[in-house]
Amino acid sequence: MTDKVEVKTDKKDLTIVCFSGDFDKVLAAFVMATGAAATNRKVTIFFTFWGLNVLKKDFGRKALGKGILAKVFNFLLGGRNKLPLSRLNFGGASPDLMTSMMKKHNVATLPELIEAAHALGIRLLACEMALHILELERDDLIEEVEDVVGVATFLNESENAHIIFV
Amino acid sequence: MTDKVEVKTDKKDLTIVCFSGDFDKVLAAFVMATGAAATNRKVTIFFTFWGLNVLKKDFGRKALGKGILAKVFNFLLGGRNKLPLSRLNFGGASPDLMTSMMKKHNVATLPELIEAAHALGIRLLACEMALHILELERDDLIEEVEDVVGVATFLNESENAHIIFV
Amino acid sequence: MTDKVEVKTDKKDLTIVCFSGDFDKVLAAFVMATGAAATNRKVTIFFTFWGLNVLKKDFGRKALGKGILAKVFNFLLGGRNKLPLSRLNFGGASPDLMTSMMKKHNVATLPELIEAAHALGIRLLACEMALHILELERDDLIEEVEDVVGVATFLNESENAHIIFV
Repeated sequence: MTDKVEVKTDKKDLTIVCFSGDFDKVLAAFVMATGAAATNRKVTIFFTFWGLNVLKKDFGRKALGKGILAKVFNFLLGGRNKLPLSRLNFGGASPDLMTSMMKKHNVATLPELIEAAHALGIRLLACEMALHILELERDDLIEEVEDVVGVATFLNESENAHIIFV
Repeated sequence: MTDKVEVKTDKKDLTIVCFSGDFDKVLAAFVMATGAAATNRKVTIFFTFWGLNVLKKDFGRKALGKGILAKVFNFLLGGRNKLPLSRLNFGGASPDLMTSMMKKHNVATLPELIEAAHALGIRLLACEMALHILELERDDLIEEVEDVVGVATFLNESENAHIIFV
Repeated sequence: MTDKVEVKTDKKDLTIVCFSGDFDKVLAAFVMATGAAATNRKVTIFFTFWGLNVLKKDFGRKALGKGILAKVFNFLLGGRNKLPLSRLNFGGASPDLMTSMMKKHNVATLPELIEAAHALGIRLLACEMALHILELERDDLIEEVEDVVGVATFLNESENAHIIFV
């Protein structure tokens, strides 16, 4: 990760707190993030709670977490390929439907957006406390995650940023 | 729309990203927006995803959108008269219930808030990409919509604004 | 409430609009708020709509509000001990499950976070209009609430703050 481009700009930074694991909200987060980065803004996405699902490696149906409670939560949450819509979910059919509509119109899909985010130098951070509660470890997350940090760190680095909570 | 008053103020602007189509959140967005505009702030509401329902003209049960997928989505979404509550929706009864409680206490209802927003010079913008995905056109939206713009434009115009995502 | 510590800092303030009454979002609000206050930021939480549940005194199953509509809404909403999760709620079991996971890992629970917030000098404000619609009064709220204010006041006091809407 040492080849990241340092962005120099007098525009305001953008920090997105990705709390939600809903497909549509995560999508909105990445669209805003990549749009901001493409116009020379320094962008950070801080993933916490349900949002951590976006960053979990795909382990199939093997439940992550060490304790039984953590395993239950993580199993029910699913992973990045199973993010529900915040509305009209229909047991998981709608995200597929939306993805196909997005492809039809050449709008990037979630895996493409994550890749694009990484390429554009957007920092993907994971919330330390949420990882702790869900008994997840750094190794359970995809390698694009730059760091695991606490609330104070993310606030300190967002002094000159818009903060958007989704 | 050339008769809009240009607001001069040293207060911070307010930009609201109206992503949600839930009745209560949309209401909160308009209450904050009109409260800010009434105290001399420059206010913009950027409608995207489900939030676009607020701006759709009332076509009864005729589904908007050209493709079949878009028609399905738009039909299920309904329009501005059918926004659900984010909780306790009861098949659409609760928004009516809340509206009647609001009327009882002389709090403005949604159509009144849209009208007030327009009169107060609040800019109502629609998200270009979301329109594109849902296969909607400018003409499918109410005339109070000032412009259809992308993410970069809305960010550029919000440099000196609080950004609130609902 | 005159013994509050006046925070002097050149860091940006933090204002959280707590619109949601979902257990997980309220928790996120308090974690961000206490994290910010602990690092010398001036923090305000403005509770509105469902978020007011956090501030309601515990009256058991006695419904608050004077009119019948208000009573119905307040009864259905429940109180601070019954906040649902935004997802995977299972009829109220999940917040208990999450609380037990939080205890296991020594993360503060909601009552502890409210107490900590108060001790850290975080201002807890209630939304005037929402109280009015739900026919609640100042006395229906816990004594830690510092004031009941309108939108304009909360915006004026947030000129130098990040505003986060949960």
